[in-house]
Amino acid sequence: MNKKYIAVIGSGSCGEDARDAAYRAGKAIGQAGAVLVCGGLGGVMDAAAKGAAAAGGMSVGILPEQNRLGASRHLTIAIPTDLGELRNALIVRAADAVVSICGEYGTLSEIGFALKLGKPVFGFNTWELGKKGEPDTGITVAETPEEAVSLALDAAV
Amino acid sequence: MNKKYIAVIGSGSCGEDARDAAYRAGKAIGQAGAVLVCGGLGGVMDAAAKGAAAAGGMSVGILPEQNRLGASRHLTIAIPTDLGELRNALIVRAADAVVSICGEYGTLSEIGFALKLGKPVFGFNTWELGKKGEPDTGITVAETPEEAVSLALDAAV
Amino acid sequence: MNKKYIAVIGSGSCGEDARDAAYRAGKAIGQAGAVLVCGGLGGVMDAAAKGAAAAGGMSVGILPEQNRLGASRHLTIAIPTDLGELRNALIVRAADAVVSICGEYGTLSEIGFALKLGKPVFGFNTWELGKKGEPDTGITVAETPEEAVSLALDAAV
Amino acid sequence: MNKKYIAVIGSGSCGEDARDAAYRAGKAIGQAGAVLVCGGLGGVMDAAAKGAAAAGGMSVGILPEQNRLGASRHLTIAIPTDLGELRNALIVRAADAVVSICGEYGTLSEIGFALKLGKPVFGFNTWELGKKGEPDTGITVAETPEEAVSLALDAAV
Repeated sequence: MNKKYIAVIGSGSCGEDARDAAYRAGKAIGQAGAVLVCGGLGGVMDAAAKGAAAAGGMSVGILPEQNRLGASRHLTIAIPTDLGELRNALIVRAADAVVSICGEYGTLSEIGFALKLGKPVFGFNTWELGKKGEPDTGITVAETPEEAVSLALDAAV
Repeated sequence: MNKKYIAVIGSGSCGEDARDAAYRAGKAIGQAGAVLVCGGLGGVMDAAAKGAAAAGGMSVGILPEQNRLGASRHLTIAIPTDLGELRNALIVRAADAVVSICGEYGTLSEIGFALKLGKPVFGFNTWELGKKGEPDTGITVAETPEEAVSLALDAAV
Repeated sequence: MNKKYIAVIGSGSCGEDARDAAYRAGKAIGQAGAVLVCGGLGGVMDAAAKGAAAAGGMSVGILPEQNRLGASRHLTIAIPTDLGELRNALIVRAADAVVSICGEYGTLSEIGFALKLGKPVFGFNTWELGKKGEPDTGITVAETPEEAVSLALDAAV
Repeated sequence: MNKKYIAVIGSGSCGEDARDAAYRAGKAIGQAGAVLVCGGLGGVMDAAAKGAAAAGGMSVGILPEQNRLGASRHLTIAIPTDLGELRNALIVRAADAVVSICGEYGTLSEIGFALKLGKPVFGFNTWELGKKGEPDTGITVAETPEEAVSLALDAAV
């Protein structure tokens, strides 16, 4: 039970670039012996789970629906919650650190939650935040998915 | 039960400007006969509830703790949830439209949730969002708190 | 904000006896100046809200759906949660004491939650609990809905 | 992802008999290649996870706290939720069928949720339910923990 838990967040419908980045992030998490936490559906979530599985790692998907029908088949464990988008908060809560890849508004809610909870967030091609024209520095920008995971593993306590 | 429900979101610790703006927003909501929904604590939340009460309006605070000890005394109804920051999602879910004033990361999570759920969001001095250097247009910027509320009331269905 | 909050729990589909008892309970809560908390839908919930309104009291319905379409029209405030049956826990959490009238399995979950959280539960024609053939004394049985409310008001802190 | 998920519910503080029964239930779940879902803490939860691990099976603990410090060390995966007792509903939601062993009021809330959601519940030395002096038949009583698991596996769809 001393494993690190790293969330990969991003949207269910995304381009090939985002899927590729998520796969690489999931693979890096699996190679490090950490547990991947994700939203359990398609797009970035499915690609990350596929990557974790390719590395022999474990993954948990926290699903918005009341059953596992829409779950990625690459997940080790799938948890239906029937919480809808509110499950986003549980994904972040379950993780020690967060890697954000691209993403839409659901991902934005997860970033907000993570930063509010004090969880380190590492971004790759993801949301940019600011106030009064000044950029917010809450998200640490990484150059590659592997770098994002490496930083997340270091930050996870 | 045909009342409109408008959320005012923003942080618990904020400057006098934000408190003033929240008071004005809450007052405008109360004057319109709508119900104010907020997080029920201090700062923007308390100021908005005070404004609603000044206009003879009703307000509901959805609290993160398991009791009402920290609730604003200006609230009509206070709902303790013991959900912590996860209650942010309930504030947004309970509202027909959202007014965001200043705010920190908790507010950011609420903005993300609102936009994900398709709830209209109107901002006054609040978060600025972008991707790849391009601003995101999810938040409609208002020039005054009263304008934000007016737009929110129009958008609330 | 020093009002007492009393939940009335019971099923959405119930007989005339249960509706009558819930109406009387809601009315007694309203007459005492306390706030009624309920699940916001039909049956016992609607009847309790109607009773509270008849006494000029306030009521809050915590709804399982993502909108207010199914809400009792007698509620002062309706809070859609999209939490499904999980909202049962929030009803109990929001109350200082609980009155249970008849009820099905959803009500049973609320009774369990209330007793687990240490909230006093008063029952009228409701679930009977036991272990190893011995009755459990967690629910205090009342002879009338008014007695249940009176005991709940005394127990609410 | 075609695995069956079986919850074992029961209290965190329980006697040696309950721990023994939970261990046997967890072991039977692991031997069947199903996933054990539990509350992740001590007592029945820990014993069930230990049993699952002894059979080489997987287990998921859905924790009430905001971290994994109190998690059973026998779990495969531990999910902190910070939802307090509200996480009870998630345990049931995540399972295809439920085995209840002894248990206190938290377990009662889980039984209520499970029956409300239409999840089959099999009990061993657990709560007895009734209304108006008549026993309720929602919980199917098993003679042994192994029988409870066997029935749960058959009922899980």
